[in-house]
Amino acid sequence: MGRESSGPLRLLRETHEERVLSVLRTRGPLTRAQLAEHTNLSRATLSSIVQTLLSNQTLTERRGEETGSAVRGRGRPVSVVTLNPAGGLALGMDLGQRRIQVTIANVAHEFVASGAVACAERTPWARRLQLALDLVDDLTTRHDMSLNSLAGIGVGVVGPVPADADPSGLVRSSDRVALVRDTLRERFGVPVFVDNNTRLAALAEAVWGAGSGVDSALYLRLSYGVGGGLVLGGRLFAGAGGAAGELGHISVDHDGPPCSCGGRGCLERYVSLTTLQAQCDNILDARDQKARDLLADAGARIGEVLAAACNTVNPEVVVIGGELAETGDHLFKPLGAAFRRFTHSQVHRTVRVTRAVLGPDAAARGGIALVLTATPAEPEWRRTSCS
Amino acid sequence: MGRESSGPLRLLRETHEERVLSVLRTRGPLTRAQLAEHTNLSRATLSSIVQTLLSNQTLTERRGEETGSAVRGRGRPVSVVTLNPAGGLALGMDLGQRRIQVTIANVAHEFVASGAVACAERTPWARRLQLALDLVDDLTTRHDMSLNSLAGIGVGVVGPVPADADPSGLVRSSDRVALVRDTLRERFGVPVFVDNNTRLAALAEAVWGAGSGVDSALYLRLSYGVGGGLVLGGRLFAGAGGAAGELGHISVDHDGPPCSCGGRGCLERYVSLTTLQAQCDNILDARDQKARDLLADAGARIGEVLAAACNTVNPEVVVIGGELAETGDHLFKPLGAAFRRFTHSQVHRTVRVTRAVLGPDAAARGGIALVLTATPAEPEWRRTSCS
Repeated sequence: MGRESSGPLRLLRETHEERVLSVLRTRGPLTRAQLAEHTNLSRATLSSIVQTLLSNQTLTERRGEETGSAVRGRGRPVSVVTLNPAGGLALGMDLGQRRIQVTIANVAHEFVASGAVACAERTPWARRLQLALDLVDDLTTRHDMSLNSLAGIGVGVVGPVPADADPSGLVRSSDRVALVRDTLRERFGVPVFVDNNTRLAALAEAVWGAGSGVDSALYLRLSYGVGGGLVLGGRLFAGAGGAAGELGHISVDHDGPPCSCGGRGCLERYVSLTTLQAQCDNILDARDQKARDLLADAGARIGEVLAAACNTVNPEVVVIGGELAETGDHLFKPLGAAFRRFTHSQVHRTVRVTRAVLGPDAAARGGIALVLTATPAEPEWRRTSCS
Repeated sequence: MGRESSGPLRLLRETHEERVLSVLRTRGPLTRAQLAEHTNLSRATLSSIVQTLLSNQTLTERRGEETGSAVRGRGRPVSVVTLNPAGGLALGMDLGQRRIQVTIANVAHEFVASGAVACAERTPWARRLQLALDLVDDLTTRHDMSLNSLAGIGVGVVGPVPADADPSGLVRSSDRVALVRDTLRERFGVPVFVDNNTRLAALAEAVWGAGSGVDSALYLRLSYGVGGGLVLGGRLFAGAGGAAGELGHISVDHDGPPCSCGGRGCLERYVSLTTLQAQCDNILDARDQKARDLLADAGARIGEVLAAACNTVNPEVVVIGGELAETGDHLFKPLGAAFRRFTHSQVHRTVRVTRAVLGPDAAARGGIALVLTATPAEPEWRRTSCS
C-alpha cells in the first residue's frame, strides 16, 4: 500500500487520506480511536494511512496530556495524532466594536501568536482594518514568523453579514464586508471568510470552548449588543439569510418598541449592557442590590427566549458569553429557573446551559476555525499534481 | 471501466456508485445535472457510472414530465434517472389519534398502495397496530404485491419519541415505541424506525411537499394538538433529546397555565382545535364572525412563535399543515403580519411561509422517507459479497 501503488488504488487511498486530514484539520488532535469514529474507517485501513502520513511527516504524534480537548477527564495518558504544525497557518481577526484582535494558529490547532488593540466605537472600517494589519506585522516580526504557508483568513465584523447564497437576492453583501474581503485577499493572496463576530465566537466555543465535542450548540452573547450563533455538526449554521441564531432579536414584549432589526420588543432592548447600565451604573457589581434586581429580571427574560430557541432546535448545549455572563449566579439562577419553566421536559432534561470559557479572543479564534473548516485539507502539491 | 476491473478500481468506483444510489434513494428521480450537483461527481465519472447502472438495471430512465418534483416549472421535457422501481419497497405507517394509515412506495419514490381506517381516540396501541397490520394484508392482497423486497418500515406515533442517543439517559423509549418496533421487526424481519407522526409529516413535506428541494424547512402542524418538526439537509433534525421542532410548546404567555409538557402558557393551549372548538363550534367555518375573530387571534400568536423559531434557525421555508391551516387567509393574514412584526428583517426577507400540500397520508409518507434515508442504498448482494 505504499506510494508506488497503481492509479485507482492511489485514488481510493487518497479519498480516505483526505477524510483523515479533513477530520484532523477541523477537530484538532485526536486519539486513533476518536479518529476511527470520526472518519468511519476501519482500524486496519486507518492504521495503514496514519502510518504513511506519519512517515511522510504530514502528521505528528504526541502524548495526549499535551492536548486538553482530546483526552478530557481521562487519567491515563494516550497518544494523539495531529496535522504537522508546519503544515500551514490560519489567521483570525476580530474587528470588534471597541477592540481589534488578531490571532494566528497552525493546522495542528496550536495558537502561536495573538495581540489586540483598543479602538474607539466609531472608528471607520478602513482604519480598523489598518489597525488589524499593523497587528499582523507586529506579531509576525515579534515571533519571527512567515505567512508563506497561510491557508486563509477568517474575519469577524460587527453587525449582520448576509449569507452568500441568499435565495431572495434581496440582502446583498454590505460595503464593509466587501472592503475587508477585497483588501485582505489582495494583500495576502489567500481565501478570506467574513462573518458576524458573535457567530464566530459561537463557532470557537463549539470547537475549543464550552461546547467542545458536542454535535449541536446554541451560543448567546450578552454584551453591549445581544447576539448569538448556532453550530451544528462542527459548522456554523447560517440559515437561508445568514441570520440563524439571532437570539437578541426574539421578541419578549408584543407591545415593546420597534427595533432597528425590523422587529419589536426585541430581547436586546431589555438586557443589553447599554440598556442595563443606563438603569444602574454598577450593573456588573453584584454587591449592588439594584444591580442584583435588574440581573434577576434580565435572567428571567433571557431564560424565556432560550426556552423558545431550545424548543425549536433542542441543542446539546447552550453556551452563554459576554460581560453580563460574568455576573454568574445572579444572572444564571433566574435564567435557569425561567428556562425550566418554559421548556418542554424532553428539552430541559437534555440541554446543558453553561458559561462560555474563551476569552476576548473568541471571535478571532472562530475566524481560524472558519478557515480550517472551509479550506481544503489536502496539501497544495497534491491538488495540483493530481488533476 | 467495466465490471472486470481490478480490486481497488472497483472499490473506488463502488464508493462513487454508492453516492449515486444514495442520492437517488433519498431524493427520488433527478436529471443528470441535478445528480451531478448532489453527488459532487464530475460529468464524465457520473456519465460512466449511470451508463453501467442503467445497463445492469439498477437504474431506469424516463421522461421528466412524469415526475413533477425533478423538473418543476420547466417547459422542456427532460430525461430523469431513478432507482429501478423493482429495487425494493418501503412501508410507512401512521398510528394517529383517530386514523390508521398505511402507505407503500418503491425506491423510485412511486407510491404504489395506500389505505386508511378510522379508529376511536382511546384505542389501545396493540389494537392500533393490529388495524395497521390488517391494512397491510388488505393492500398486498388487493394489489397482488409481495413484501419480499421490503427495505424497512417507518412508523409515526402520537406523542414524544425520545432520541435513541439521548445523552442524559433520562428519557427512555416508551412502551408503545418498543411494542411497535418489536412487533413489526419480528413480523417482517426488516429495520423499523419509529418517530413522532408530526415530525414524519414534516419530513414528507420537505421531501415531496411544500418544502421539496429546499435545504432547511420548519414544519408546524395545527390540529387537535400543535406540533412541528425541523428538517435540515433532507433529514429530520432530532436535537439532543429528540424534541427539536416542538413549536406547540413555545410559551406565548408567561402567566399562562402549566402544560403537561412541563412548560407553561404553551402555544398549543391557545390555538389547538380542541381549545378553539370549545370556544366556537364552527371554528373551521369562516362565514362565522366569531370563528374569524378567533382565527385572527390564533394567527397572531402563531406568527409570534414562528418569528422566535425563525430568528433561531432562519429556515428557507415554513410549512403549515393541519386542519386549521385549511382556513386559509383568515389564519394566514394575521399570522403573516405577526411574523413580519417580530422577525429580524434578514429573516423575514429570506423565509417563505406556506401551506402544507400533502394530504392525511403525510405522516405515513414521512415513514417511507425515513426508511429511504436510513437504510443503505447499495443492494444486498453487494454488501454480502464484498465484505
